[in-house]
Amino acid sequence: PKIVTLPGDGIGPEVTAAAVEVLREVAPDLTIEEHLIGGAAIEQTGEPFPAATRGAVREADAVLLGTVGGPQDSPWNRLPRPQRPESGLLALRRLMGCYANLRPVRVLPGLEHLSPLRPELARGVDILIVRELLGGIYFDGDRRLDGDSAHNTMRYTRAEVERVARVAFWAAAQRRGRVTSVDKANVLEVSELWRSAVQDVHDRKYRDLHLNHEYVDSVAMLLVSNPGRYDVVLTENLFGDILSDLAAVIPGSLGLMPSASLGDGAGLFEPIHGSAPDIAGQGVANPAAAILSAAMLLRHGLNRPALANQIDGAVAQALRAGPTADLGGRAGTQAFTDRVLEGLQ
Amino acid sequence: PKIVTLPGDGIGPEVTAAAVEVLREVAPDLTIEEHLIGGAAIEQTGEPFPAATRGAVREADAVLLGTVGGPQDSPWNRLPRPQRPESGLLALRRLMGCYANLRPVRVLPGLEHLSPLRPELARGVDILIVRELLGGIYFDGDRRLDGDSAHNTMRYTRAEVERVARVAFWAAAQRRGRVTSVDKANVLEVSELWRSAVQDVHDRKYRDLHLNHEYVDSVAMLLVSNPGRYDVVLTENLFGDILSDLAAVIPGSLGLMPSASLGDGAGLFEPIHGSAPDIAGQGVANPAAAILSAAMLLRHGLNRPALANQIDGAVAQALRAGPTADLGGRAGTQAFTDRVLEGLQ
Ligand SMILES: CC(C)[C@H](C(=O)O)[C@@H](O)C(=O)O
Ligand SMILES: CC(C)[C@H](C(=O)O)[C@@H](O)C(=O)O
Repeated sequence: PKIVTLPGDGIGPEVTAAAVEVLREVAPDLTIEEHLIGGAAIEQTGEPFPAATRGAVREADAVLLGTVGGPQDSPWNRLPRPQRPESGLLALRRLMGCYANLRPVRVLPGLEHLSPLRPELARGVDILIVRELLGGIYFDGDRRLDGDSAHNTMRYTRAEVERVARVAFWAAAQRRGRVTSVDKANVLEVSELWRSAVQDVHDRKYRDLHLNHEYVDSVAMLLVSNPGRYDVVLTENLFGDILSDLAAVIPGSLGLMPSASLGDGAGLFEPIHGSAPDIAGQGVANPAAAILSAAMLLRHGLNRPALANQIDGAVAQALRAGPTADLGGRAGTQAFTDRVLEGLQ
Repeated sequence: PKIVTLPGDGIGPEVTAAAVEVLREVAPDLTIEEHLIGGAAIEQTGEPFPAATRGAVREADAVLLGTVGGPQDSPWNRLPRPQRPESGLLALRRLMGCYANLRPVRVLPGLEHLSPLRPELARGVDILIVRELLGGIYFDGDRRLDGDSAHNTMRYTRAEVERVARVAFWAAAQRRGRVTSVDKANVLEVSELWRSAVQDVHDRKYRDLHLNHEYVDSVAMLLVSNPGRYDVVLTENLFGDILSDLAAVIPGSLGLMPSASLGDGAGLFEPIHGSAPDIAGQGVANPAAAILSAAMLLRHGLNRPALANQIDGAVAQALRAGPTADLGGRAGTQAFTDRVLEGLQ
């Protein structure tokens, strides 16, 4: 199988290199090919998502992404919107048709003390956020900015809601069987459609699973005050952007959080942390999220769950043995990666 | 001055009665008149915001609201949207022209243990969220639902952003002088307008205050992992709905959280907790948020800050002396209110 890696910007290259080392260790049969995206691509080609990258992604069996974007004051951010690094990321998601973004949020036993929440609230948290990734207000063409007014449009079709809802129910069936669907149906028509389409998918095919609907403001509260109540959380794109990042701080560091974006073709796998330009190139970035994203690639992208489980185990062990700086420890990127590789032997 | 109270649904009548007792104690000159809103109004008049209430609100110097809405399975929620309880609340906000919703989030010294956050993160948190309340995706007329697709429109004009930004800077000037403006300018045109309008207000009139811009997903994270970094947080309507509720859990109970909604005329003051139908009528609801909303009414609505400070002090003292059930204590609504009244003597 052919894997395309897109290291991108900031700490992206370092953590992607770590993940590639791990992939090569457990799956030597993979062909791994590196391409440009984001600011790095802008520097070399003038575009955030160049044609060569698009071509390679089309041929790939799975894509492993690093991180995209520069510091706030980067000159990239003064380019017209379609030429900025983030636009490369959005174009990649769209090209690959990855409509379901899966973000597991798990507090590992023994690591509760890393959470900003009180340990008794953090203990045992195990949530899967399923975020719709290609619809809603992100991509809709009805958008405008002039000097004195601006708008964007949050739009969904029933079919867009149904396909991501099926992913959420499929995932819940392999977990604790509970889906919470998020909306703002007391205010938004688009949320009424969302709620009704999710309920229909449930009633037609997943009646044995538990479904409930909660308002987005209430979910934001309860993720902090009682995260243990959630199993799978299903949400539209913008709410998912906010809630998945919110949930991601529960385990204590973004450096631990992988993600998978799935559609009908190849999947896209990426750590959720940003490009962290302040620590880029220093060899201190935590590669755990990138390595765990490689594990998700093996599990969901190549259907090799046993290898994925091995990696998950080795990362958990390495974290207990010697955490990285973001977790209050002293292990550098390479030292941490070496420990994961040892654990895999 | 004339105060209109709108007790509304669930625990609204109980906590509003407590707040009225406190108002009568400190400001016997007020005329206080009660009217219907929400589900209670639907039951008696068929409408969530009846004409008599509209008339009274138009004449009021300030409005004290309880809570609006029934349980999820309430028959009210099956009415067409304009006839539901929440529509009464939105119509009230619109009629009063209250475009700036102020939600203070303060962890009181000695009450850190109530927070879901670790005490060292909760200690000293003192944030004011300023949420735009009349624009954005809530009220825009370009909205539709048909069977297979739906949309809503997030729209702002420069003037709408500027007026709420001025409130945020005005508030910051009386606090620690720092405003964080929230947007999603890396994806949304409407956020680009927001960012530029806020920056303009700053550059023209408030250059001595500190302004920075952060993405909504990042703010959601940092409110949990490092809330101490925020002073005033300025946000559009939908982001503000989510972030203000998120921030509201930091002090440990929604039962502590008041709010003020200000515009060019009379202000609207309300606890942010919901109607809590499960505990309504039992005399156990925490009236602190409603009483603190009455204090905000005196401070911002009637310009009587000294009285407001007295109430704030008496509530803090009553909380330490004997907390209500939501805070793990045993004081009932009336016992707690009596303790506040004693503190005011
Ligand atoms: C960089 C940005 C466009 C992106 C998003 O909003 O989707 C990011 O925040 C994410 O969640 O992956
Ligand atoms: C009830 C609902 C319409 C309302 C809102 O979304 O504004 C509530 O959540 C609030 O924040 O006051």
